[in-house]
Amino acid sequence: MDFLDTLIKKREGKKLTKQEIENFIAHVTDGTIPDYQISAFLMAIYFQSLDEQETAQLTLAMANSGETLDLSSVLGFKVDKHSTGGVADTTTLILAPLVASAGVPVIKMSGRGLGFSGGTIDKLESIPNFHVEVTQEQALQWAKQSNLVIMGQSKNLTPADQKLYALRDVTATVESIPLIASSIMSKKIAAGADGIVLDVKCGNGAFMKTLEDAQQLGKCMASMGQHVGKKITVVISSMAQPLGNYIGNRLEVIEAIETLKGKVQGDLLEVSLTLGAHMLLLAGKVSTEEQGKQLLLQNIQNGKGLAKFEQLLKQQGGDASIINDYQKLPLSSHKVYFYAPSDGYVQAMDTAAIGRASQETGAGRKQKTDVIDFGAGIVLKKRIGDSVTKGVVIAEIYSSTEKQGQNALSIIENAFEIGKNKISVPPLILDVIQ
Amino acid sequence: MDFLDTLIKKREGKKLTKQEIENFIAHVTDGTIPDYQISAFLMAIYFQSLDEQETAQLTLAMANSGETLDLSSVLGFKVDKHSTGGVADTTTLILAPLVASAGVPVIKMSGRGLGFSGGTIDKLESIPNFHVEVTQEQALQWAKQSNLVIMGQSKNLTPADQKLYALRDVTATVESIPLIASSIMSKKIAAGADGIVLDVKCGNGAFMKTLEDAQQLGKCMASMGQHVGKKITVVISSMAQPLGNYIGNRLEVIEAIETLKGKVQGDLLEVSLTLGAHMLLLAGKVSTEEQGKQLLLQNIQNGKGLAKFEQLLKQQGGDASIINDYQKLPLSSHKVYFYAPSDGYVQAMDTAAIGRASQETGAGRKQKTDVIDFGAGIVLKKRIGDSVTKGVVIAEIYSSTEKQGQNALSIIENAFEIGKNKISVPPLILDVIQ
Repeated sequence: MDFLDTLIKKREGKKLTKQEIENFIAHVTDGTIPDYQISAFLMAIYFQSLDEQETAQLTLAMANSGETLDLSSVLGFKVDKHSTGGVADTTTLILAPLVASAGVPVIKMSGRGLGFSGGTIDKLESIPNFHVEVTQEQALQWAKQSNLVIMGQSKNLTPADQKLYALRDVTATVESIPLIASSIMSKKIAAGADGIVLDVKCGNGAFMKTLEDAQQLGKCMASMGQHVGKKITVVISSMAQPLGNYIGNRLEVIEAIETLKGKVQGDLLEVSLTLGAHMLLLAGKVSTEEQGKQLLLQNIQNGKGLAKFEQLLKQQGGDASIINDYQKLPLSSHKVYFYAPSDGYVQAMDTAAIGRASQETGAGRKQKTDVIDFGAGIVLKKRIGDSVTKGVVIAEIYSSTEKQGQNALSIIENAFEIGKNKISVPPLILDVIQ
Repeated sequence: MDFLDTLIKKREGKKLTKQEIENFIAHVTDGTIPDYQISAFLMAIYFQSLDEQETAQLTLAMANSGETLDLSSVLGFKVDKHSTGGVADTTTLILAPLVASAGVPVIKMSGRGLGFSGGTIDKLESIPNFHVEVTQEQALQWAKQSNLVIMGQSKNLTPADQKLYALRDVTATVESIPLIASSIMSKKIAAGADGIVLDVKCGNGAFMKTLEDAQQLGKCMASMGQHVGKKITVVISSMAQPLGNYIGNRLEVIEAIETLKGKVQGDLLEVSLTLGAHMLLLAGKVSTEEQGKQLLLQNIQNGKGLAKFEQLLKQQGGDASIINDYQKLPLSSHKVYFYAPSDGYVQAMDTAAIGRASQETGAGRKQKTDVIDFGAGIVLKKRIGDSVTKGVVIAEIYSSTEKQGQNALSIIENAFEIGKNKISVPPLILDVIQ
């Protein structure tokens, strides 16, 4: 059957068959459907959507369009975690060692940062000599020894999704719940874990701006579990402000290590524990979220989590001495400050703007080909609800050049709302969908 | 501004500015918007539509995207006519000489047939030596002498529409009223006439299947008049059965000549007179439709219409002796018959199927590059409401090969519904919109 018939069918709002969806993905993968037909189809999906079953079929077809990771040789229930992307979202570097240290294998493919959100792989690469390009054989061998591997995405993972994502980006078809859900889930399924905890970020520093949208995406992904044979938990967490206080690759590595050392409390720790606890729950290691959090906190206090992180660094060639000597991490020499312009309380932040300011320092990419300055970034000294007096430091900005620092500063200056009213701290965990 | 912003705006259902529409067409024409963005935009228009003003702006931008015909040197009010395409729709060959013979200049660019509908240019080319490739200078010179030119479309007419139409055809975005209307009107506007009569065909042998759809398209085109400075009349006519009884290029030329000779009555004549009368009305030559019809009928009876047709043939190099000797037109030698399978009345026809049967004889094109067999086609002996007795001939099928004839026959056999009930003749002129 001609793809045009499938295209017309979806344009008319009719349900596609498994065969039609699989043909579509097969021909996207082998390049025999022209881009102009794919983009018309994506726009038709934007308007007519896909139901639960179609979304699951699309997801599986994309997951199987390229290389897949077979984790069956690693004993135990393997869990993965994915975040839809935010600012100062360093949870992976904290929870992955913690969960692995609790006896649950974490074999994780992570991405690079683009736009205002950072990427775990970039953060790890700021550690001297750490390798993220890992073969499947090597990953499986390491996983058996340490329970923990964090690596870059294989270039041949879900090629159909790569193709569709690139087209969606330039055809105004990114904002479709089933397309977002299938893109995320296809990569996670190809990466082979038995259970997946999804962290859907919600707020002005996230792709999903409203709780309603985040819940819709969350439900869409959670409902896929039974269709694709995976255990899935979705946590919706706030991106009303950066999750941690350190933004930028070197800085986020430091904040993660400080957290594993038990020296940092707050939102980043709380979300890391929540997500980690749900990973343990999926793996059957604990029977309540609270038990999971306690177990992970214990592994901070007894040093097991930090030891697991150290093992990860050594395993993948990284310089583990950075754990006790942050000076060995790259540091950009130029520093400027953002001072409070008046007395009051931090009412709100433009989180995406803060992410863009971090980009401006050199810590992030505007284009895929941009080279990251690992030592650049921003340290926040205040969070929403904190009181400030005029002239106190709200943010420190690190960059390699004066210009980058000033560019970031001019964004940061407009990203904070200071007001007279005392306000309460916004809720952090907004929903859990299973 | 990036085209992606325009694309998002239309996707969100917002109204585009003149500037945005003109930029779109400029960049479609110069090739700087990639096809995948154009097709996503077309699908967004399919769902969100364009309002009257946007449609007129799109139409004018497309009309001006290439060559335009300047008819100002030809005296008088110039009228054009366009049909949305049907089966045995030979009105142009009848009304153009009639209207021209009544003193109103007709300078007409016509198209070729594709799919189940025929094209005036193909029909004219079945006349030995008739030239349809005419320069603008030549056309203007002839128009001053004879009031009548029928020529093929300039290759550089509305290149933006050509590009969009080709993409719509393969991206399931043909069926959009504003896109159909702007495509038709842009070509007519570029062709330079002062007034345009549009024949929107409606029924199972037309693109518009229902009166409601036909009226929507008709209103969309009629409402464009004031925006584009043209006088426009839309006639909606039935395509519940082939308009004439002769289908195929040679055959339609013969039926047109017979009509101009006053030997054929019926639907084809009636629609030709109606459209022609509205052309005279737009030109101010008559003050009622009825007066117009009378004037045209007179020019059949007094032979002026036929003489104008003869002048057209001679002017464009064609062999005018065919008018009195149809044997000089190509004739396909193979002939098969479709006999009535039972007694009764013709209840209905699948008009598009009859058009496809004509294609199968070799009279039409499946692909743009197919070569037409001018001598092939179908002659219908019965119309809806006619009584038949078992074994009487309903259709004669002409083709160059046995196989083509049999293929056409097998379609024709299923295209007629014969039943016991007497039924009344369906209405022919369904609406007139001004």
